Amino acid sequence: MNLNFGLIGTGFMGKAHAIALRSVATVFPHVPTPSLTTLVDADRNKAKLLAAGWGFSGFSDDWNRICADPEIDVVDICTPNHLHREMALAAIAAGKHVYCEKPLALTSDEAREIWLAAEAAGVSTSMGFNYMCNPLIELAREIIESGEIGEIFNFRGSYQEDYMADPQMPFSWRCLRSQGGSGALADLGTHLINMAEYLLGPMSAVMSSMSTVHKQRPDPVSEAMREVENEDIAQVLLAFERGCPGTMEFSRIASGRKCGLCFEINGSRGSLVFDQERMNEIRLYAGSDGVGRRGFRTILAGPEHRDYAAFCPAPGHGLGINDLKVIEVRNLLQSIVDKKPVYSNFANGYRVQFLVGAIEQSHQHKQWVDVAPSRQN
Amino acid sequence: MNLNFGLIGTGFMGKAHAIALRSVATVFPHVPTPSLTTLVDADRNKAKLLAAGWGFSGFSDDWNRICADPEIDVVDICTPNHLHREMALAAIAAGKHVYCEKPLALTSDEAREIWLAAEAAGVSTSMGFNYMCNPLIELAREIIESGEIGEIFNFRGSYQEDYMADPQMPFSWRCLRSQGGSGALADLGTHLINMAEYLLGPMSAVMSSMSTVHKQRPDPVSEAMREVENEDIAQVLLAFERGCPGTMEFSRIASGRKCGLCFEINGSRGSLVFDQERMNEIRLYAGSDGVGRRGFRTILAGPEHRDYAAFCPAPGHGLGINDLKVIEVRNLLQSIVDKKPVYSNFANGYRVQFLVGAIEQSHQHKQWVDVAPSRQN
Amino acid sequence: MNLNFGLIGTGFMGKAHAIALRSVATVFPHVPTPSLTTLVDADRNKAKLLAAGWGFSGFSDDWNRICADPEIDVVDICTPNHLHREMALAAIAAGKHVYCEKPLALTSDEAREIWLAAEAAGVSTSMGFNYMCNPLIELAREIIESGEIGEIFNFRGSYQEDYMADPQMPFSWRCLRSQGGSGALADLGTHLINMAEYLLGPMSAVMSSMSTVHKQRPDPVSEAMREVENEDIAQVLLAFERGCPGTMEFSRIASGRKCGLCFEINGSRGSLVFDQERMNEIRLYAGSDGVGRRGFRTILAGPEHRDYAAFCPAPGHGLGINDLKVIEVRNLLQSIVDKKPVYSNFANGYRVQFLVGAIEQSHQHKQWVDVAPSRQN
Amino acid sequence: MNLNFGLIGTGFMGKAHAIALRSVATVFPHVPTPSLTTLVDADRNKAKLLAAGWGFSGFSDDWNRICADPEIDVVDICTPNHLHREMALAAIAAGKHVYCEKPLALTSDEAREIWLAAEAAGVSTSMGFNYMCNPLIELAREIIESGEIGEIFNFRGSYQEDYMADPQMPFSWRCLRSQGGSGALADLGTHLINMAEYLLGPMSAVMSSMSTVHKQRPDPVSEAMREVENEDIAQVLLAFERGCPGTMEFSRIASGRKCGLCFEINGSRGSLVFDQERMNEIRLYAGSDGVGRRGFRTILAGPEHRDYAAFCPAPGHGLGINDLKVIEVRNLLQSIVDKKPVYSNFANGYRVQFLVGAIEQSHQHKQWVDVAPSRQN
Repeated sequence: MNLNFGLIGTGFMGKAHAIALRSVATVFPHVPTPSLTTLVDADRNKAKLLAAGWGFSGFSDDWNRICADPEIDVVDICTPNHLHREMALAAIAAGKHVYCEKPLALTSDEAREIWLAAEAAGVSTSMGFNYMCNPLIELAREIIESGEIGEIFNFRGSYQEDYMADPQMPFSWRCLRSQGGSGALADLGTHLINMAEYLLGPMSAVMSSMSTVHKQRPDPVSEAMREVENEDIAQVLLAFERGCPGTMEFSRIASGRKCGLCFEINGSRGSLVFDQERMNEIRLYAGSDGVGRRGFRTILAGPEHRDYAAFCPAPGHGLGINDLKVIEVRNLLQSIVDKKPVYSNFANGYRVQFLVGAIEQSHQHKQWVDVAPSRQN
Repeated sequence: MNLNFGLIGTGFMGKAHAIALRSVATVFPHVPTPSLTTLVDADRNKAKLLAAGWGFSGFSDDWNRICADPEIDVVDICTPNHLHREMALAAIAAGKHVYCEKPLALTSDEAREIWLAAEAAGVSTSMGFNYMCNPLIELAREIIESGEIGEIFNFRGSYQEDYMADPQMPFSWRCLRSQGGSGALADLGTHLINMAEYLLGPMSAVMSSMSTVHKQRPDPVSEAMREVENEDIAQVLLAFERGCPGTMEFSRIASGRKCGLCFEINGSRGSLVFDQERMNEIRLYAGSDGVGRRGFRTILAGPEHRDYAAFCPAPGHGLGINDLKVIEVRNLLQSIVDKKPVYSNFANGYRVQFLVGAIEQSHQHKQWVDVAPSRQN
Repeated sequence: MNLNFGLIGTGFMGKAHAIALRSVATVFPHVPTPSLTTLVDADRNKAKLLAAGWGFSGFSDDWNRICADPEIDVVDICTPNHLHREMALAAIAAGKHVYCEKPLALTSDEAREIWLAAEAAGVSTSMGFNYMCNPLIELAREIIESGEIGEIFNFRGSYQEDYMADPQMPFSWRCLRSQGGSGALADLGTHLINMAEYLLGPMSAVMSSMSTVHKQRPDPVSEAMREVENEDIAQVLLAFERGCPGTMEFSRIASGRKCGLCFEINGSRGSLVFDQERMNEIRLYAGSDGVGRRGFRTILAGPEHRDYAAFCPAPGHGLGINDLKVIEVRNLLQSIVDKKPVYSNFANGYRVQFLVGAIEQSHQHKQWVDVAPSRQN
Repeated sequence: MNLNFGLIGTGFMGKAHAIALRSVATVFPHVPTPSLTTLVDADRNKAKLLAAGWGFSGFSDDWNRICADPEIDVVDICTPNHLHREMALAAIAAGKHVYCEKPLALTSDEAREIWLAAEAAGVSTSMGFNYMCNPLIELAREIIESGEIGEIFNFRGSYQEDYMADPQMPFSWRCLRSQGGSGALADLGTHLINMAEYLLGPMSAVMSSMSTVHKQRPDPVSEAMREVENEDIAQVLLAFERGCPGTMEFSRIASGRKCGLCFEINGSRGSLVFDQERMNEIRLYAGSDGVGRRGFRTILAGPEHRDYAAFCPAPGHGLGINDLKVIEVRNLLQSIVDKKPVYSNFANGYRVQFLVGAIEQSHQHKQWVDVAPSRQN
């Protein structure tokens, strides 16, 4: 089986998707092979040049073309966030499967619209929550679900980077609510929110505080100071439906943190600690270890963990961020074949956006907000 | 100059104080020498036996005796929390300097009463917030105040231990509000609250959520299940007067954490990360390091940091928790001589208790609570 | 420009090469595109099946075919070690460029033969020393050569894994000197030896001790105990021509070590520490940091380091072991275009094998052996 | 029971001993109480001043006085290395128990002389190998002896500091063979040599290479360059009588290392890793952990490990270097009462010096040297 991909966008994520689409068949020989059919960039020359380099057989400067093209099976959206909605709706309307970078949309309502459209059309969907695809996150879920660390007591998560720590960094689209959404919460928070619910089930309530530390930034052209419209930091108290409390914290100005997606989960018989900057390690504390022998174990990813062996038969040799994208693409391909949803599909994309909206609302009203899925319709 | 100490209590902290009182003169030869005059324990035999072992010249089973004893200069209170108030007030009334383990009292009002009494009496006071005395905490303060890491953006603190993680652990005084106060918040939180304000100045507002995960515990005698009256976990959003947000999290049920007093402070030019379980290290990210050369530095405590050299002239050889107590005692002795307050005096003890009260109140009302010192009177 | 590859071998390394050949053009669009022309496996069905999955246009069960095929530009050898010599010589004789997994051969003399043949034929050659291709190893070299850490005093390297730690692990080809060479020294040591000379220049003398800890292992079929012919551990004292001493240690039975290729380099103004299990980090101690501010910095790989940005524009997101192979392939492709040798070419392959031979000889004679390149001819 | 101590020397170690002598009775109430009887320093004023501060009842500028004093039970020698011999012999001749900082003497012959004298006199002896006294080293021994990590395969130790890394550091007594002995090997190596044999039993052979990197240093007065007489680095291949190989490496010029006494021990069922810079942690790899759950555990010192609880009943709170000295003193006091030798007595002091001599000899002759205890007489 072969699936033809049309990829829109040639930035950070566009390239990552292209690499993954090209290597997935070698890494996972038993899934359908994606064909790199059309690469789309608004700049026709760039589209042409990169299509050749990246191995696409065709290119275009008009994304509507790939929605209209009957050869295309999957539309892959790697454009800036504010373009996701229009493209996803068009692709769904054309009956394409859709693979979309996070966030699905800029608001919860938009995300819901897209999700409902995909449901109605019966197409397969997938979101770019690649950190989820780490074999060690799968291990964490297995450890939690099997009861190895007992009843879960607490979740303590954070995602910190420093890409906007410098107060002199110029104003950009990231500072606009209409394009960058809610800042750190949208950029970083969405990854952790999705992962937290994957690991521990749905949240039931959130209470947040958000801060715009750098309230103005210089316009890159005029150098005049412009008002930043979204937040650098979001801090959240939360509860899960399973009855355990938690916290989450997101920052785009945490000097020194480069990919600091971290969590600690405490249970009655043990704990788990993860840090994406050391993505090939997870730390497990097993209360069942002998007296005087207990401590956090640093488990290195290896072939005994799901999907690792497809990349490398030797433990501890290390996967990279692009390898997670390969797993993400494999999940999508498999879901199309199996006609079963992947975990991070548009339902999750909408759920995450709903939670983002609730966190913003909590901050505005300085109140707890109920986020039980039953409230979500 | 010589100062006679009467020490009440022979448990964990009593012994730690005794060790510190005995070694402080050797470590810091230039401060007044404390004399170990009287050791008090309600169990007369225990008092006698330990007085001999610990080097006290006298002993008693009645703490009122040392308050009444004109030879005694300093009353050192290491008893269970609910006894602090009565003893401190009696010692102050007798004109003694008072050294009290944290918390100063069980409520903010009681703490205020004690603080006011000490102020009126003009005695020197000191609280047992020993983690503060770490040379690397002093370094952190110096780095923050000198502007080395720029404008401070965020504080992210936690203090997690696991001494009550096991759901089968029997009911004890720690589970009673009248004796154990607010649980993890009182036991652990007070240390971090005090440290946070030492480093970043006063907080202005708090919003909290607290959880009793193990709602019942077996009575150690009857084995009947008893209601736990205080909280295992406290999670706090906060703001500092200087304008930076923060979070704090306390847990006594975080499996695997043994002395997990941690913080991360992010500034515009760098960050600091500390973990008490590695108390001889602090991590500094300096944004001023060269391109491609930036990263968190692990600074090992050494003689170039305040007070370290008194223990050891060689860097990286490591201080221990009892050494921090020696520094704490030195601070108290020095403050008596200099007639200048130490940082962690009863004013701070009251401030901390005020914040504990506000955090409890925020949890009850599910609202932000103003904690500006101006509100505190 | 296009280069046609014939790949021999479908094991661990065969797959890694296939993944790299397929993604290199996307990651590095400016180098010649490799065409996956023919995949060779002695098992014809396997060759056919995998050729389809891995994207090869042809397949064969006879490696001589690709040497004879005028369409093939590069012969890529990923077969067991004892087959390297015959295949490499045949490929060179046919005027092909050759890309060979390490070790180049089983003995120094064989390696020299192959190197001389390649030199005479004027073909480009490359060895599979992928760890070398890590952007952080490039950074280490840059730091050393620029004098940032001053005069180099010492090299302390090790490569430890535990794939044969279990005494019950059955006898295999790895236990035979004719196929597994000198055991840990050949399997693991060759990587570090090459890296050490890349970083610090040629070694001048070695003194070694080697140990076969598990002297017998059960035959997988008969279960009879068979004599292991090569060593589990090799330990080496050494000197570099630049005048600095060093040590190296290799073990295939170091329980818990999965990819423990580590080094520490001390200089008069700083030090470097690397551990392949955390391949996206390198630790730098800069003696020029301020008093009380010195410590090892953990530098995370990022786009400011060579080649990283081609994979990901965001720092700290992490490369994986297969990404290093992509860089290795890029180096080969570039060297063919530029007609300039890569660092890890057959000259290095021979040098490494010469050093392996000298280390074995030192062990046998319990004497220092001169290994200056001038002795090597 | 009471034991009167006369302490000679008031430097780094003199102060550390004084602190330990003063606190040992509080920490360990069940051992005999040492009385701080006389403090000796060649500078009479210094002796007087420090005696008062450190709590000694008497002082002297003549060390012969305490040997002659019938009140003195134990002579404690903390003077520069070249004075140990004369003082120890005099104290033994006077029938005193002797507590001596390492090294016991400057040569193996001298050490043997002292050891024989002490044996003949029947006095108790103890060496200042304080790192040995760490509760986690005791744990390591227990883990090794119980077979928890199986048959031991390899020992990999190092002790690196950087106190002489700066080439501009002036010439001092440490650079003289007559006073500083063999440099890094004497200063640092002796600690690790003793610890290695404590953990794994006697060594049987050594092969070494030693290097004086900074061959000259400026005289602090004349600024003329003087020849350094001993070595900055010593690197050793070795074998233990139990049949396992090992390596050791010592450096006083390893930039960034402050107290880097490290070892890794590999066994058939697990491994142990220790680093004195994180003296409250030991890392254990247990091969018996479940598939996909294996990794190095970081065990924090706690009350379940020997001697820790005497300092602190709570785990993970951390001991410091001076606490190890308290344990060392306790061991000596206990040995006097029990009339049983401590592990690190003068027999060990001589053994260590014998090994130091053998390592020097191996370096000079570039040969393996037999060091089996049977050779030692």
